[in-house]
Amino acid sequence: MIGGGKGAFIGAVHRHAAALDGLYELVAGAFSSNPETSRASGQLLGLSADRVYGSYQELIEREQQLPENERVQVLSIVTPNHLHFAPTKLALENGFHVILDKPMTFSLAEAKELQAVLAASNARFCLTHTYTGYPMVKEARQLVASGALGAVRKVYVEYPQGWLSTFEEGSDNKQASWRTDPSRSGIAGAMGDIGTHAFNLLEYVSGLAVTQLCADINTVVAGRQLDDDGAVLLRLSSGASGVLVATQVAAGEENNIRVRVYGEKGGLEWQQVDANTLQVKWLDKPTEIRRTGTGYVSSFAQHNTRTPSGHPEGYLEAFANLYRNFALTLQAEQAGQKPVPEALDFPGIEEGVRGMAFIENVIASGRSTQKWTEFIV
Amino acid sequence: MIGGGKGAFIGAVHRHAAALDGLYELVAGAFSSNPETSRASGQLLGLSADRVYGSYQELIEREQQLPENERVQVLSIVTPNHLHFAPTKLALENGFHVILDKPMTFSLAEAKELQAVLAASNARFCLTHTYTGYPMVKEARQLVASGALGAVRKVYVEYPQGWLSTFEEGSDNKQASWRTDPSRSGIAGAMGDIGTHAFNLLEYVSGLAVTQLCADINTVVAGRQLDDDGAVLLRLSSGASGVLVATQVAAGEENNIRVRVYGEKGGLEWQQVDANTLQVKWLDKPTEIRRTGTGYVSSFAQHNTRTPSGHPEGYLEAFANLYRNFALTLQAEQAGQKPVPEALDFPGIEEGVRGMAFIENVIASGRSTQKWTEFIV
Amino acid sequence: MIGGGKGAFIGAVHRHAAALDGLYELVAGAFSSNPETSRASGQLLGLSADRVYGSYQELIEREQQLPENERVQVLSIVTPNHLHFAPTKLALENGFHVILDKPMTFSLAEAKELQAVLAASNARFCLTHTYTGYPMVKEARQLVASGALGAVRKVYVEYPQGWLSTFEEGSDNKQASWRTDPSRSGIAGAMGDIGTHAFNLLEYVSGLAVTQLCADINTVVAGRQLDDDGAVLLRLSSGASGVLVATQVAAGEENNIRVRVYGEKGGLEWQQVDANTLQVKWLDKPTEIRRTGTGYVSSFAQHNTRTPSGHPEGYLEAFANLYRNFALTLQAEQAGQKPVPEALDFPGIEEGVRGMAFIENVIASGRSTQKWTEFIV
Amino acid sequence: MIGGGKGAFIGAVHRHAAALDGLYELVAGAFSSNPETSRASGQLLGLSADRVYGSYQELIEREQQLPENERVQVLSIVTPNHLHFAPTKLALENGFHVILDKPMTFSLAEAKELQAVLAASNARFCLTHTYTGYPMVKEARQLVASGALGAVRKVYVEYPQGWLSTFEEGSDNKQASWRTDPSRSGIAGAMGDIGTHAFNLLEYVSGLAVTQLCADINTVVAGRQLDDDGAVLLRLSSGASGVLVATQVAAGEENNIRVRVYGEKGGLEWQQVDANTLQVKWLDKPTEIRRTGTGYVSSFAQHNTRTPSGHPEGYLEAFANLYRNFALTLQAEQAGQKPVPEALDFPGIEEGVRGMAFIENVIASGRSTQKWTEFIV
Repeated sequence: MIGGGKGAFIGAVHRHAAALDGLYELVAGAFSSNPETSRASGQLLGLSADRVYGSYQELIEREQQLPENERVQVLSIVTPNHLHFAPTKLALENGFHVILDKPMTFSLAEAKELQAVLAASNARFCLTHTYTGYPMVKEARQLVASGALGAVRKVYVEYPQGWLSTFEEGSDNKQASWRTDPSRSGIAGAMGDIGTHAFNLLEYVSGLAVTQLCADINTVVAGRQLDDDGAVLLRLSSGASGVLVATQVAAGEENNIRVRVYGEKGGLEWQQVDANTLQVKWLDKPTEIRRTGTGYVSSFAQHNTRTPSGHPEGYLEAFANLYRNFALTLQAEQAGQKPVPEALDFPGIEEGVRGMAFIENVIASGRSTQKWTEFIV
Repeated sequence: MIGGGKGAFIGAVHRHAAALDGLYELVAGAFSSNPETSRASGQLLGLSADRVYGSYQELIEREQQLPENERVQVLSIVTPNHLHFAPTKLALENGFHVILDKPMTFSLAEAKELQAVLAASNARFCLTHTYTGYPMVKEARQLVASGALGAVRKVYVEYPQGWLSTFEEGSDNKQASWRTDPSRSGIAGAMGDIGTHAFNLLEYVSGLAVTQLCADINTVVAGRQLDDDGAVLLRLSSGASGVLVATQVAAGEENNIRVRVYGEKGGLEWQQVDANTLQVKWLDKPTEIRRTGTGYVSSFAQHNTRTPSGHPEGYLEAFANLYRNFALTLQAEQAGQKPVPEALDFPGIEEGVRGMAFIENVIASGRSTQKWTEFIV
Repeated sequence: MIGGGKGAFIGAVHRHAAALDGLYELVAGAFSSNPETSRASGQLLGLSADRVYGSYQELIEREQQLPENERVQVLSIVTPNHLHFAPTKLALENGFHVILDKPMTFSLAEAKELQAVLAASNARFCLTHTYTGYPMVKEARQLVASGALGAVRKVYVEYPQGWLSTFEEGSDNKQASWRTDPSRSGIAGAMGDIGTHAFNLLEYVSGLAVTQLCADINTVVAGRQLDDDGAVLLRLSSGASGVLVATQVAAGEENNIRVRVYGEKGGLEWQQVDANTLQVKWLDKPTEIRRTGTGYVSSFAQHNTRTPSGHPEGYLEAFANLYRNFALTLQAEQAGQKPVPEALDFPGIEEGVRGMAFIENVIASGRSTQKWTEFIV
Repeated sequence: MIGGGKGAFIGAVHRHAAALDGLYELVAGAFSSNPETSRASGQLLGLSADRVYGSYQELIEREQQLPENERVQVLSIVTPNHLHFAPTKLALENGFHVILDKPMTFSLAEAKELQAVLAASNARFCLTHTYTGYPMVKEARQLVASGALGAVRKVYVEYPQGWLSTFEEGSDNKQASWRTDPSRSGIAGAMGDIGTHAFNLLEYVSGLAVTQLCADINTVVAGRQLDDDGAVLLRLSSGASGVLVATQVAAGEENNIRVRVYGEKGGLEWQQVDANTLQVKWLDKPTEIRRTGTGYVSSFAQHNTRTPSGHPEGYLEAFANLYRNFALTLQAEQAGQKPVPEALDFPGIEEGVRGMAFIENVIASGRSTQKWTEFIV
């Protein structure tokens, strides 16, 4: 693991997710750019001291020298955005598989470079767009893909949060401070942090690509350096249209990311607050409530489920599904087999490039007086 | 009553709403432009034959000739949009109070003319924006007005329907046929029919006025003459921003109009599907569930409630609240008293003018390549 | 109307319910045993003074003398329980149709006598078990009757209220005072007031009859004279079993009456808080959400609906459905026609007798040390 | 781990739960009474072959011989009920800490013997009553204990399942077959499998003890050997009363265990389907929605939470909380410290004994013609 030292939020999430299925063992880390912090973090995590490194470069160099059956196979990179590119590039170039937190890089240019690096490597890459790991999100995508709803006409996605309703970065809030700092977060705040999740969820479930957009991007809280709020009108491949909302100033909201897709014959709705339910609505018959863990859902939903229906699976399980599918893919390939489609269904470099394109396009649209702008990758 | 003959939907709703509290008695009507249909409808409704007229002109003329204590006092006008202006104008000019279905007129110009006519008359006017009649919508407005949420930052309103997902106007669907016909509905379809409700609800609850907008207006179903779908970015007085969605092609959706308002300290959410609940969310404490019929809600909510908490009030009760408040206002004024503020809280000519302005502005914005356009009344 | 003077809760509900569809006109009343109060109430309601009477006897006698086309046709009797029997008996004996509030009488013996009186009369009788008037309760009954769920195995019904959590009868609460007074309410408090509703709902939806019961009946609030809480184990015809809960001391609960029925293949759930939804659950497929106002529900549900799906119908509409069906039945019979089955589906004397039997049986069981006792009518 | 070989459900759950926080490492196991199956299971789980044993006796004997810093410290025992007692007893007697699946033993007598064995040992013991591991269940208990609701008056708990609606044990369903077999499950079916969970949840949240009960115990599915359904009237210490429902024939239900507790001033409701929400209802003010991961909940809720509010935690996290608290307790004690109260809050031998007493008392009451029977431990 690179990053994720003491006090980090997402590092702990990655560790839970990796641990849940017993398919990963945490053996080495460079947990902080501060060697002291890295060492202390490694010790807390029970790592052997000689596998805790002071920098990602050191980690990659020294692990590379270990016998193949001892060295790290997969690197989880959970640093702030500005520190995604370099360690990922170095890892891929040295043949380490990488699991990287989103958004993929600091800029679209970096993202494209990473795409080239990956293509030239033998490594595999996973980007942790968590929400696509939920069984009922899988079910939603399969339902749309099956054609049962007819051609998609409308998509709505929203990610409302309230935790940045005040000037949190003025206090001692580590999470707030890097996310609102352009030098670490990039050109986008809310749009990078949660807008990319919403964008990814929308494209994943609908199976469509955004082609044009018209954005209203705001910085609501005085003194903040990056956007903390936005709404975007969308046009998609196939002629569908939609709306994306992402805000961090919806005071009182938690993390209720929600997606709705409507086709000619029906629609679907999923939201994180009721994550194990997929509502399927029909023009002429009763709404269906599809549930995680039941026998009637698709193989993709079943594959990503650990408990019987009614025992809720949550955010960590969704996250763990990314880790698990990545591991199953690697195991199959190491065994010379073709991974099953369900295992291959994890977000990768394409999603990362499109996510970075979303950030650049949406911020540009927000600044533009032109109504519709092309979505350029 | 003018309009609302056999087969009409909204006419029956008005009659239920008027009847519920025993404050109105239906005594006369011109229920259709077809005298036969009018007569038949009047008979079905148990009216005396001599009070059923062949046209609104006849109704107004003949009722005018009756002694004051016999003649109609209030006229409910429930015709399609293109037939709102003329009978309303004539009624007001002749001193009849008017309850008119929305949108107020066929065009903004007509709306403004009606405003002038009303100002010059002694009559009172009510426009049936139903949703503002719900007790918990009243509570929402009072909560925002109280300042408890702090300054408003974000408003979201949506009105998703699915019933026009197919080319209903091609079949024998009277409701679909006039609503999608520019000669009867005006320049807008969905935006006029339900967008105006969403717009009104947003301004009512937030206490803010839309100042700029950027609209994506679509006609999704092939062959349809008017818009059946749209999404609008909004800027509001006070610097808040928002999103309005109105669509009639969200297959499987009923009429779940929903509004959310977020201020500095908290937010609120109300939706018709759970009409007797107002969610109030706070930055630092538990969400509150406020309910119709309880002792702790505002006088505006209590005034508009008929049953103890837990016995749900619905759409007809909300509609009836408009009728009831209008009647209470008239009764007070007839008695030479000042109506209580709770009775005066019904939509009127101002809301009608702004609604027509919304229609014209939103359709213009939809056609414009300019991003933001001013909201002009 | 007999009873329902100023300050009465249920009298106003009956008047709203009667008014909603324009099928009834309130023309006469004896609104209170106090002639002054009766007169004042009648005046408030806009009745002609000569049709406001000082007692029910006077009302029945004097109305009887009016020409048939002028006199009252249907009497709504909305007095406290101890004043149900006498006016109902007199009304029926004089050929007036009666709509009576529940529970039907003060004792089972009175109920049976009324049954005989009705059988010997030409009058019709309706008992206002409100909840069976909800469209989705109709749908539930039809679904069970259709056999789609298979043989019924389990039934659960509950009616939790919290309003009697404190000694309300010690204050100036008219509703609390008669309901907790054995001389006016009868031998049961909660079991009579809401237990009978729960019992009726259970038998109505399941289509089964309770045959044995085992009750835990409590008086929780100190000083109270009647039960305010209870739970009952049930055995039903066909071998099904169940649980009935009714309590007035569930602090914080409103009136969320709820019924669940499970058969061999699936189950259903309805609750008043979400009155326009019927959940239908299946062993092997997704739960269905059936909704008021849709095209796919049974004719019984559709018949009892006034607004399109998504526009919620509430308690008053459910209540009004009883009035409306009673009126449709009377109209059909007066026209020499057979009422449609949907119109005939209102609670009557049978339900009243069983309700009184429930009260006597459940209180007896509560006092018994015997586990199971027979349900004796 | 003892038990939990291939095809077992709960064994996998225990492994996920143990793995989630990285506080346990699976190093040894006797996964099946069939040595072949045990070996194969161990291999699948990546264990070293010499730590996979053919029986629990062998495991305990051989691990005992390993150096203290190499041997197993905690034994998870996840066998069917009839195989709980012997391995647990042996493990405790040999100083291994034990995490045992519920119900604790095959009989109350065994439970009491285990209690004595534990008291005489230096080992610690945890019983996996999963639901008490949920953060919002912790919050519920703390709320009641705080006295904010006043004295408890009513408790309702229910655990409806539908999966045994048909004669599953007649097919190749391993889960169904041992649970319905008296020789492996004990004298109770549903009451042992899920009734004990409901009973434990009720006593945990309310802080009260059941003192008397009156049970209706049924075997609904033809051919089944044990109860698959039941409802129980309860009397509790402090004079409160309640109802417990547990059924496996509520066709269409998943595992929606739910508890409601009402005191003098308010009530609370928690259900697994919405596990991260605790509803707190008040006599005179709005219902509160308390949520996992927020800053305002008790230290017990916060201690058992891994993700920010809005990112749902589920069943595995609740389960993992038992494992984590047990580990934190052991770690503290090994370090010579007193565990924090939050860590000590896991179910143990007392809960196990009461659970077995519940089984024996409830089955006896079901067979009795006496109404109320004492709850005897």
